[in-house]
Amino acid sequence: MKLSCLQENLSKGVMTVSRLVATKGTLEILSHILLTTESGRLKLSATNLEIGINYKVGAKIDSDGSITVPAKLFSELISQLPEGKIDINVSDNTLTAKIGGFNSNIKGLSAEEFPLIPKIKDKKTTSIKAGELKDAINMVFFSAAPDETRPVLSGIYFMISKGKLSLVSTDSYRLSEKVLSLKSKETPEKEAIIPARTMIELARILDDPEKEVNIYLDETQVMFETEDFELTSRLIEGKFPDYKQIIPTGSETKAVVDKESFASIIRVASLFSRESAGSVTLQFSNKGKIEVISSASQYGEADSSCEAEVDGKDTEIIFNSKYILDVLQNLPAGKVEIELSGKLNPGVIRKQGDKDYTYVIMPLRA
Amino acid sequence: MKLSCLQENLSKGVMTVSRLVATKGTLEILSHILLTTESGRLKLSATNLEIGINYKVGAKIDSDGSITVPAKLFSELISQLPEGKIDINVSDNTLTAKIGGFNSNIKGLSAEEFPLIPKIKDKKTTSIKAGELKDAINMVFFSAAPDETRPVLSGIYFMISKGKLSLVSTDSYRLSEKVLSLKSKETPEKEAIIPARTMIELARILDDPEKEVNIYLDETQVMFETEDFELTSRLIEGKFPDYKQIIPTGSETKAVVDKESFASIIRVASLFSRESAGSVTLQFSNKGKIEVISSASQYGEADSSCEAEVDGKDTEIIFNSKYILDVLQNLPAGKVEIELSGKLNPGVIRKQGDKDYTYVIMPLRA
Repeated sequence: MKLSCLQENLSKGVMTVSRLVATKGTLEILSHILLTTESGRLKLSATNLEIGINYKVGAKIDSDGSITVPAKLFSELISQLPEGKIDINVSDNTLTAKIGGFNSNIKGLSAEEFPLIPKIKDKKTTSIKAGELKDAINMVFFSAAPDETRPVLSGIYFMISKGKLSLVSTDSYRLSEKVLSLKSKETPEKEAIIPARTMIELARILDDPEKEVNIYLDETQVMFETEDFELTSRLIEGKFPDYKQIIPTGSETKAVVDKESFASIIRVASLFSRESAGSVTLQFSNKGKIEVISSASQYGEADSSCEAEVDGKDTEIIFNSKYILDVLQNLPAGKVEIELSGKLNPGVIRKQGDKDYTYVIMPLRA
Repeated sequence: MKLSCLQENLSKGVMTVSRLVATKGTLEILSHILLTTESGRLKLSATNLEIGINYKVGAKIDSDGSITVPAKLFSELISQLPEGKIDINVSDNTLTAKIGGFNSNIKGLSAEEFPLIPKIKDKKTTSIKAGELKDAINMVFFSAAPDETRPVLSGIYFMISKGKLSLVSTDSYRLSEKVLSLKSKETPEKEAIIPARTMIELARILDDPEKEVNIYLDETQVMFETEDFELTSRLIEGKFPDYKQIIPTGSETKAVVDKESFASIIRVASLFSRESAGSVTLQFSNKGKIEVISSASQYGEADSSCEAEVDGKDTEIIFNSKYILDVLQNLPAGKVEIELSGKLNPGVIRKQGDKDYTYVIMPLRA
């Protein structure tokens, strides 16, 4: 194998795939990345056996071939080299990289030992703009369960129905739903639960919002494909909870408030909520304000308020402050809307007027 | 106690002193900061019994008093509050902070329980511009020993002689010396070993390079004072090694090289030096280059070179790459000078032409 490519492109590719290398475990080959020449480009591949990625870097190929090299050493080396054309040469399972005064040899393993990243044979399910998909992932990933006690809750539910794609996650304390419109209304009805980590990695890689992402779904796997990469992941088996019934359909109290002001009073209250697992009391009153109260017998208490347009019944409700801050952090600047139906029923937070995104929080008992 | 001050000033002060609060240990009071009104300002104090700090914040004092509050909670609270005038009120060992819609109470402990930060009674030893002292500390702190196996090596040697102030540190593998000129040539001859951590904290706090720092030294303590703060620290007992004899007085080979190019080839070599505790081989040749070689039998090897003006004998020497990178990282951009006297003698690195700073590295054996 003999080729040349630009350090800046190679470095970006190597960084991207290195993140998916297995960090622990016994199979040495999984800590490596596979380099293969393919259709006039250099293909970098990595897998942790749950997620696999192929990333293609523009290159001038002089002769085809392949090798695997340790991901950590290779990515550190490439990122340290200066910008410009790197010459790469492989022989006897050793990769030589040359640029300017820099000459390095890295010992690799045979490409044949590298596990195959499975392909999906079904035809494309749908496609969507990278920017829309990335934003949707960033609006839902944080409410997936962080552990696998109930595996289905550790994933993001991915449902295609009537020309819409819904992304949903819930850890049973709160729920996020984002609905995207698909260009092709002909898309078949499909559903799947994709590991949250896969979606987070995907969002990280999608750097050009204008690119088209093709999505392939079969019974056990999903593949996201752009002209630069293919990211393949296993699906989570099981049935996602019937979440639609949790989303409130009406409300008794509705408030509109500036996101930053609201986040500020919640953050201050959260400082005094550590003894009570994050719980803070929110009071909504027609006097045009939201008041947030929290107290810790040992440390003290906070009582803060901000202006808000409050319509409907005066009400009081207890929420986990972390769950409120999680969503506020991911909403764009501007106004947010809060809808409540008494202290025992779930509340809804969304960007003002945005019916395509819904965040539901379960209240805590006093 | 009743006063008001600006959130931005209070927040800066609280952050500064909080860093010196004891993070472990059994004395609850040491995790607190002391607030006292003093000469029309609010004084914030913290100590870990090794270092103590008093930091003064401009305030409008309505009534005098004092209290201690938990450093972590108080600094988090103040930093979350909006900019503007905060009203602070203390009664019954509870501090109330109010600004805009924010109302918080923090339970404190009586100020009488707080340990006294000792004062130095001797008169001022000398003074120096904050910027000069800060730069000097940043040039020497990294070669102090990270542990206290030999306590004197964990400090920075601070010596005043003939109108000069020298700051020196060594972990016995490398040594840094920075010499500053004092304005007053009348300064008495004095020496002390100051814990490196004290000096690092001092450098962090010195944010205005034009301010004057007064230095007070007695047998057991040092105090650095500006109009905003007093930082007091115990000294390290013992005798600093007679370091002057380690600094080479001449050289057989002298090279001048661009700092960034040199750092680049060292960094690439260091990737292949993990099996050999960081050791890399440097070759200096009259052909106008420095070559750096390293190899790891398991991973591969690097051989990189950069242009340099080399005068004197061709030579080869083995250094720990970390020790070279440490100094390069702290030198300003531009050319550096390397002086060597064969492979068994220490080498010197400094900014080109700067005789006030000397970095000495001991060579490794092959």
